[in-house]
Amino acid sequence: MITLQQCVAMDERDPLGAFRGRFSLPEGVVYLDGNSLGALPAATVAHLQQVIAQQWGERLIRSWNEAGWIDLPVRVGDKIGQLVGARPGETVVADSTSINLFKLLACALRLQPQRRVILAEAGEFPTDHYMAQGLSAWLAAGYELQRVPAAQLASSLDQRVAVLMLSHVNYRSGAMHDMAAVTAQAHAVGALVLWDLAHSAGAVPLQLVDCDVDFAVGCGYKYLNGGPGAPAFAYVAERLQPDLQSPLSGWFGHVRPFAFEPDYAAAPGIRPLLCGTPAVLSMSALEVGVDLMLETTMSVVREKSLALTDILRALVVQELEGHGFEIITPQAHAQRGSQISLRHPHAWPLSQALIARGVIGDFRAPDVLRFGLAPLYVSFRDVWQAVARLRELMRSGDWNRPEFLQTAAVT
Amino acid sequence: MITLQQCVAMDERDPLGAFRGRFSLPEGVVYLDGNSLGALPAATVAHLQQVIAQQWGERLIRSWNEAGWIDLPVRVGDKIGQLVGARPGETVVADSTSINLFKLLACALRLQPQRRVILAEAGEFPTDHYMAQGLSAWLAAGYELQRVPAAQLASSLDQRVAVLMLSHVNYRSGAMHDMAAVTAQAHAVGALVLWDLAHSAGAVPLQLVDCDVDFAVGCGYKYLNGGPGAPAFAYVAERLQPDLQSPLSGWFGHVRPFAFEPDYAAAPGIRPLLCGTPAVLSMSALEVGVDLMLETTMSVVREKSLALTDILRALVVQELEGHGFEIITPQAHAQRGSQISLRHPHAWPLSQALIARGVIGDFRAPDVLRFGLAPLYVSFRDVWQAVARLRELMRSGDWNRPEFLQTAAVT
Repeated sequence: MITLQQCVAMDERDPLGAFRGRFSLPEGVVYLDGNSLGALPAATVAHLQQVIAQQWGERLIRSWNEAGWIDLPVRVGDKIGQLVGARPGETVVADSTSINLFKLLACALRLQPQRRVILAEAGEFPTDHYMAQGLSAWLAAGYELQRVPAAQLASSLDQRVAVLMLSHVNYRSGAMHDMAAVTAQAHAVGALVLWDLAHSAGAVPLQLVDCDVDFAVGCGYKYLNGGPGAPAFAYVAERLQPDLQSPLSGWFGHVRPFAFEPDYAAAPGIRPLLCGTPAVLSMSALEVGVDLMLETTMSVVREKSLALTDILRALVVQELEGHGFEIITPQAHAQRGSQISLRHPHAWPLSQALIARGVIGDFRAPDVLRFGLAPLYVSFRDVWQAVARLRELMRSGDWNRPEFLQTAAVT
Repeated sequence: MITLQQCVAMDERDPLGAFRGRFSLPEGVVYLDGNSLGALPAATVAHLQQVIAQQWGERLIRSWNEAGWIDLPVRVGDKIGQLVGARPGETVVADSTSINLFKLLACALRLQPQRRVILAEAGEFPTDHYMAQGLSAWLAAGYELQRVPAAQLASSLDQRVAVLMLSHVNYRSGAMHDMAAVTAQAHAVGALVLWDLAHSAGAVPLQLVDCDVDFAVGCGYKYLNGGPGAPAFAYVAERLQPDLQSPLSGWFGHVRPFAFEPDYAAAPGIRPLLCGTPAVLSMSALEVGVDLMLETTMSVVREKSLALTDILRALVVQELEGHGFEIITPQAHAQRGSQISLRHPHAWPLSQALIARGVIGDFRAPDVLRFGLAPLYVSFRDVWQAVARLRELMRSGDWNRPEFLQTAAVT
């Protein structure tokens, strides 16, 4: 039996316990949706105030140089690079995850002129597939987006596969791939790999260089706590950078952007992944979130993440048996990210009723309750309370009320 | 002779005079670079504080619905639509100008399957040309980016031209095209038009519907005062929206983004131009700038803009004769935007020496001093002071000092 007292004791021993105070979290809310929108670092408020009032308002255009706005994409990129096991110069912040995926998928396809298959997993977060479809529709070569269940990925890898494009941690189930093994399997048949780290970066340790990863993209507004719609990042292995040719060839990726030359000439290194003028306000907020995470290490984060997810799993079994929940997140540590997902026929009204009781998780169509456990600010007591309130809802039947049955869900 | 007293008197009569106090401008600075980075609206500071601390920090994920984040791209787009003469539903805010241009150019080319020429003007802001080159390089059809001087545009329009892609106001010279006439000329040969309004929106009256414009893009951080790297906008005429097929087909352009369907299906209307998750912080700042501009009308703005540019031209002639300046901005009202550009062999050190004396204009390679006159916050006295300080520099020769000769220009 796990007790509330044990959870409180685990919080007292938590080496990340002090981080919770570094976030501005609302009173009385158990926030288990940091994999949709990360919480607000307290320092972000003052930093953005400074960026807006001082850098923009007082110094105006001069801040491009004085305040280092011009270097933000590479500077914040390299900081994220430290979190994902990249070398300096391999990671950059720009645009959105979808757009970065488009750029890198295009670059990868160009490197594989004889191959026509983009292999992906069925049931991943769909924007990656939408972007692949959009890109393919524009290319005369005729690419096939082949989607298979995870168990069939290895057997589907063959000489036709140009790129294996894969979410490292599945947004819905929380299942995690073995990045080193899958990358090696892809390379063995001559395929390139493009990993989507949206649910990994800041949640699990990553070693992109050690895993010999070719390309990766990731999200700034989930575990990196960069704020709503924060810019995304892109990683390209150093060895592939000389061959980068992004179709989105904008002036910030030009070798001499302020020479205003008539023809595009790509900058060296990672910079050709930049396109238009960087979103300074949003990128400045992201930097605060990344800096905060760099105050600890990903192994400490992972240790707490596993403890949180273990406790949540155990409490679901202990407290919710017989109420129709199925845990769809894999049990093995090596196979899961930092979330626990429960399948339940009434997942939608349950998610709404939980929110009304101060437990914010989220719903993923058609029938999944998803709880993201961001180790920097989620406590073991939070986990206890979430399950306790869910149990109360099941016992009272209070989830079955008209206000919780309305539609409309939003990430 | 124009006198300082006359300038002060014009400020006293200025119907936009009260707007200057709505901006947070630094003391003692004459800011003539609003066409590179617009000034900070005073209300932006408090609004972003509220968006960050309250909407993000307190309400977290719930703000996508509660605070209307989900509608920001269309809501702010429609507000910009009012400034550019668009119908509701024809304008949306998303990504950067470069990326929006890529989307619309791609859509336009797809509508013209028999034509292979993208016609543009030589010497425009180069990112538009870079994006066209990047897109073309990816398309098997083999497009030609044909660039000609403005005077040859009309004679270059023929049945080969798929798209005429044109900056309405030239970033360097400030020369403005006759949008109605040029659009009609393009349509007469069956070409589509794609206007870049970066130096027009918020600076000159625009009537996109009345001019029968097909596509347009524009910038949020210049005359719209949206902040550094603010998101950009895109316009598509209602009649063309059913045929929109953007290669950047991300989940925010899906007809049911939160159903997480496996295959892309475009939303109706303008929404297929959305791609990834919108940058809420940057977009919220842009909304304040646009709201402020909507408190007046573009005809009042234009009237002051023409008066400011007329006075600046006249003062350059009156005060700087014999110092080697050439005014490259056209004299006719109908042919210029809201800036005056001066060619001078020492434009770079002059621009730096002026900044050191509190007059911020900017330099455009290789030899142009550019003064943007944003009518909401630039005064006639500012114009007087800018010319007076430039005259002092020329007379004293103080621009010719080592610190002003170093390189490195930005935006």
